[in-house]
Amino acid sequence: MTRLIIDTDPGIDDAIALFAALASPEFDVTGLTTVFGNVTVETATRNALALLDIAGRGDIPVARGAAAPLAMDYLGAIPHIHGEDGLGDGGEPATPSRSALDVSAAEFLCRAAPGATILAIGPLTNLALALRLRPDLDTEVEHVVVMGGNALGPGNATPAAEANMMNDPEAADVVFGARWPVTMVGLDVTHQVVLPGAGIDAVTAADTPTARLLGRAIPLYRAFLEKVSGLAGIYLHDPSAVAYLLDPSLFRTERWPVRVETQGISRGKTWPSIGGTDDAAPAAWQGRPSVNVCVGVDAPGVLDLLTARLS
Amino acid sequence: MTRLIIDTDPGIDDAIALFAALASPEFDVTGLTTVFGNVTVETATRNALALLDIAGRGDIPVARGAAAPLAMDYLGAIPHIHGEDGLGDGGEPATPSRSALDVSAAEFLCRAAPGATILAIGPLTNLALALRLRPDLDTEVEHVVVMGGNALGPGNATPAAEANMMNDPEAADVVFGARWPVTMVGLDVTHQVVLPGAGIDAVTAADTPTARLLGRAIPLYRAFLEKVSGLAGIYLHDPSAVAYLLDPSLFRTERWPVRVETQGISRGKTWPSIGGTDDAAPAAWQGRPSVNVCVGVDAPGVLDLLTARLS
Ligand SMILES: [Ca+2]
Ligand SMILES: [Ca+2]
Repeated sequence: MTRLIIDTDPGIDDAIALFAALASPEFDVTGLTTVFGNVTVETATRNALALLDIAGRGDIPVARGAAAPLAMDYLGAIPHIHGEDGLGDGGEPATPSRSALDVSAAEFLCRAAPGATILAIGPLTNLALALRLRPDLDTEVEHVVVMGGNALGPGNATPAAEANMMNDPEAADVVFGARWPVTMVGLDVTHQVVLPGAGIDAVTAADTPTARLLGRAIPLYRAFLEKVSGLAGIYLHDPSAVAYLLDPSLFRTERWPVRVETQGISRGKTWPSIGGTDDAAPAAWQGRPSVNVCVGVDAPGVLDLLTARLS
Repeated sequence: MTRLIIDTDPGIDDAIALFAALASPEFDVTGLTTVFGNVTVETATRNALALLDIAGRGDIPVARGAAAPLAMDYLGAIPHIHGEDGLGDGGEPATPSRSALDVSAAEFLCRAAPGATILAIGPLTNLALALRLRPDLDTEVEHVVVMGGNALGPGNATPAAEANMMNDPEAADVVFGARWPVTMVGLDVTHQVVLPGAGIDAVTAADTPTARLLGRAIPLYRAFLEKVSGLAGIYLHDPSAVAYLLDPSLFRTERWPVRVETQGISRGKTWPSIGGTDDAAPAAWQGRPSVNVCVGVDAPGVLDLLTARLS
């Protein structure tokens, strides 16, 4: 069983990922840490607590994390995608039954992450802060699985950058440069993992609190994607990272050093050095550890796996 | 017939492109302008004059251009790819029979480019300088065909950037933002156009001065590519831009606004806004003209076309 800490900014696809993880006996979810991103960290923390209540897992501690990136101001919430409440504005979520811990997310990670896997499905600020607090943490964590970045394809927040990276490129560059084993589950694969209407029906049909929550949350996200991309379904960005942990054989990966751009119009772009340059890797990539980068995916296999866990 | 001005930094693939253009009755080559890049502008100018002598076209004027980029120092020649002499170090090229014009490349372009097509197969400094000298030049030039950039794939000079863009990103951003029709023939297609050994034999076999020059020039470039990439052949980067002008139907193109990154580790990256972002195109791309970006190529068709012209 994998001991799992989920760092999250719920967020509609975060909610789906969380429910899929909680429904998986392969995981022992021992904590949630929250971060600004899709919503403010206040809303993210409230939603993390509320979602755990809905899943009947009020026993799992929640530590509130960063309200803003390492080196800039928070870019702001994206209510047109995730709703004012971060959960699709489908009706007031119940008030959480309890509060977050008294320790920050970074402190919680320093204490609880040794020996665990961190599933990071928001901006990577908390992980970078934890490394600053405990510089050897990267030798003690089992695995860091990041939803974020775009290695070979375009971004979704800008032509260059994926949203989680764009929200804190400095932190992401720290996380991809640290010694822990990192897997990057980015747009290269998640843009292929589209849950169609029938799949949405399947994961929202059950008469359970989690299915009802997803049924209220998903319509706004679905309508947004249909409007801007003509997409017939929803991207399962964060849940794809859960699927990677459940069955890595569904993904094709490459091992490359990855830098994250912090400058210019490319800010937030994850750059693998894929060894295809005419010269040796430039200085900026030298000495960097290899990241396990997902570049291909059996999308039907991922959809089947996630739908089974959620139904 | 297309009146053509070729802006070039010869360069082994520049020599192939030049000979292919001169062998094509579709073109009236009315001038060459030179630029730093593969070699210094001194060597580029000497080579341009020598190559025209070898092709029996000492009538075509050559204007010497920029020695360094708009906004930084010259990064330096790449003798491990193109040779100390820029032509593969295959034997001392003959001293040119004449000198370059007394006008700079930028001045020459201002005079000669209205009504013509510019085939730009080096860093774009001369074109940007010409626009600064004559701000309406971009309404008077027929077409600018650029070999350079990478829209969807990785770079070759760095993980981010193609070499011509890396050599002057500020100039490239000016050129892609101007009002002239621009076609970008970048690594997305040229990395598919590999002339194999048999093709190299075909274009170097004839008992002509141009074939003999290519026979002396190509081996260094070929050995370099075999060593660093295991490539069985040579990339026809610059000649692919000639092929585009000869038969655009061999290419698949998309029309996108393109910005060129000037900052950070992404410096020199060409960024199309392909409309796949979750939000409207960011401010940096707004109001930019659409560039005709080559994204697919019939590589065998291009190789057949170029080989026929060169044999
Ligand atoms: Ca998230
Ligand atoms: Ca060139």
